[in-house]
Amino acid sequence: MRTVTEEPIRVRYGETDMMGHAYYANYLFWLEQARGAWCRDRGFTYLSLEEHGFKLPVTEVWIKYRGEIKYDDLVIVRISLEETRRAAVKFRYEIVQSVTGQVVTEATTWHVLVSSAMKAVSIPPEVRGWLERDPDAFETVV
Amino acid sequence: MRTVTEEPIRVRYGETDMMGHAYYANYLFWLEQARGAWCRDRGFTYLSLEEHGFKLPVTEVWIKYRGEIKYDDLVIVRISLEETRRAAVKFRYEIVQSVTGQVVTEATTWHVLVSSAMKAVSIPPEVRGWLERDPDAFETVV
Amino acid sequence: MRTVTEEPIRVRYGETDMMGHAYYANYLFWLEQARGAWCRDRGFTYLSLEEHGFKLPVTEVWIKYRGEIKYDDLVIVRISLEETRRAAVKFRYEIVQSVTGQVVTEATTWHVLVSSAMKAVSIPPEVRGWLERDPDAFETVV
Amino acid sequence: MRTVTEEPIRVRYGETDMMGHAYYANYLFWLEQARGAWCRDRGFTYLSLEEHGFKLPVTEVWIKYRGEIKYDDLVIVRISLEETRRAAVKFRYEIVQSVTGQVVTEATTWHVLVSSAMKAVSIPPEVRGWLERDPDAFETVV
Repeated sequence: MRTVTEEPIRVRYGETDMMGHAYYANYLFWLEQARGAWCRDRGFTYLSLEEHGFKLPVTEVWIKYRGEIKYDDLVIVRISLEETRRAAVKFRYEIVQSVTGQVVTEATTWHVLVSSAMKAVSIPPEVRGWLERDPDAFETVV
Repeated sequence: MRTVTEEPIRVRYGETDMMGHAYYANYLFWLEQARGAWCRDRGFTYLSLEEHGFKLPVTEVWIKYRGEIKYDDLVIVRISLEETRRAAVKFRYEIVQSVTGQVVTEATTWHVLVSSAMKAVSIPPEVRGWLERDPDAFETVV
Repeated sequence: MRTVTEEPIRVRYGETDMMGHAYYANYLFWLEQARGAWCRDRGFTYLSLEEHGFKLPVTEVWIKYRGEIKYDDLVIVRISLEETRRAAVKFRYEIVQSVTGQVVTEATTWHVLVSSAMKAVSIPPEVRGWLERDPDAFETVV
Repeated sequence: MRTVTEEPIRVRYGETDMMGHAYYANYLFWLEQARGAWCRDRGFTYLSLEEHGFKLPVTEVWIKYRGEIKYDDLVIVRISLEETRRAAVKFRYEIVQSVTGQVVTEATTWHVLVSSAMKAVSIPPEVRGWLERDPDAFETVV
C-alpha cells in the first residue's frame, strides 16, 4: 500500500526573509498544507474531520533545515503517517527541492485527537478507518 | 480630548522579505495591534468587546507605503478613530519610523460591528460609549 | 486579447483567525501569488524580472472584503493589469469563492519599478514588452 | 551569572486560527523575537551581528506545545543559550502564560554561524565574546 502523499508548493515572496530564503516558521504552514493533502488523497478532508466533532492540534514539532529554499522554488512535501497511538498520531515529512531533487528539510509532527471541547479522546474506529485508508482505493477530494 | 493612541512595534525578522524590507502584508498585523492598543488606552480590550457578543471585522483597507521599513526598526503606529456610522467605524493610521520621525505609511481601515452570528448590527449605546471615551479619563489596560 | 489571469488558491488553516475566517492580512499574500501567476501566464517570472535588475514593490493597496472566506475554501484570484504609467503599474483583482461563484473581495495594488538600488526608474521597453504580452501567445512558465 | 532573558509578547489576533488558539507556526516568530531580546540584553543587536558579516540561520527546531495560548494573552518567552559548539549554538526556550504562570511551551533551536556568503564558519573570538557576555554587565539596547 502506498503510504506517501506528495504536495507541491510554490514558495511565496512573503514567505522569504531578508536573508533571501524562506523564513523558518513558514515551513510549518507547508506541513499543514501537506496534512490537508494527505487527507484529500484518502478521500476525506481535514475540514470534514472537524465537522464530525474532532480536531487534530499539533502538540510537538521537530524540523531539520538541511538546505536553502528560495522564492519561487517549487518544493514537494512528502508526507506519511508514521505512528498511531490511542489518542495521538505522528506524521513524517520530507521537503524536496523539485529542481535538484534534494531533500532540503525533514520534519515530524505529533498531534492529539480532541473533541470539540478540546479534550483528548481515543481515536474512534470511524476516524481510525480514515487514517488507515489505502489512498489508491479512494478518489482524491478536489 | 486626545484622539491619537501610539503603539510602538519592533519589526521582526520574519516580517521582512528578500527585498530586505517589511513585507507589505505584515503591516496589516501592526494595524491590528494598534487597534488593540487603542482599545486598551480607553480602558477596555477588543477581547472584552468579543466577550460582550460583538466582533469588529475589517471590511476595507487602504494603505499607502511611502518609505522603507526594515528589520529591527522601531515603528510607532499612530491610530485614531476617524468616523463612526450606524454600524461601522473607520480608523486612520500613520506609521512613523521612530529614528527619523518620518511618516512612512498611511492607512485607513473600515470595520462593521457584527453580532456573534456575524450579522451587522447598529452600534449599541454601550459600545458607542466605549468608542467615544476620553483616553486620559481611563486607565490603560495592561 | 485576454487580459485576465486566474490563480486558484486553497485557504490554509494558518490563514484563518479565531473569528473563523481568513485573516485580512493574508489576502495580500494571495494577491502576490496572483501577480506571480500573471507573469507566468505571459511567459516570464517575477523572479526573472528581479534577475534583470528590477523590483516591483507595492506602494499602495486598496482592498474591499465583501464576503467571508474560510478554511479549505478554494478561491480564484482574477488579476489584470489596469494601468501603466511611466514608472508605475496598477493591478486589479477579484477574489471569487469557487463554490458559490461570488466575488467576495475586490482589490487594487500600485507598484513602482525600481532598480537594484531601490530607485524608481522609467519602465524600459524590454520590461514594458513583457507587461504588454498577449498571454495566449506565450507558454505559461511552470 | 544570570543566563535567562525574558521577553513579553502580546498575542495578535492574526496569530490565532479558527481553533481559537495561536497557530503553531506563529510561535516560531516569538522565538525569533526572544533571540533578538537576548542579544539586546547583552548589549548588542542581532542586526549588528549581520552588519559585522555574520548570520545565524536556524538549522533545527524542536517545540512541544503543552497548553493553549489565546488572543491577547501576554506570554513571557524565557530564553537561554544552552550550548555552544565550534560553529553552532543552541537556544532553549520556555513560553509562560503570564496570568497562570504555567509553562505552556518548551522549545530548542539550533543555529549555525555563517558568513555573508552563507558558508558555515567557526565562531570567531569577537562573536564568542558577545555570546558569553554577562547580561547584567551590559546596558540593554533599546
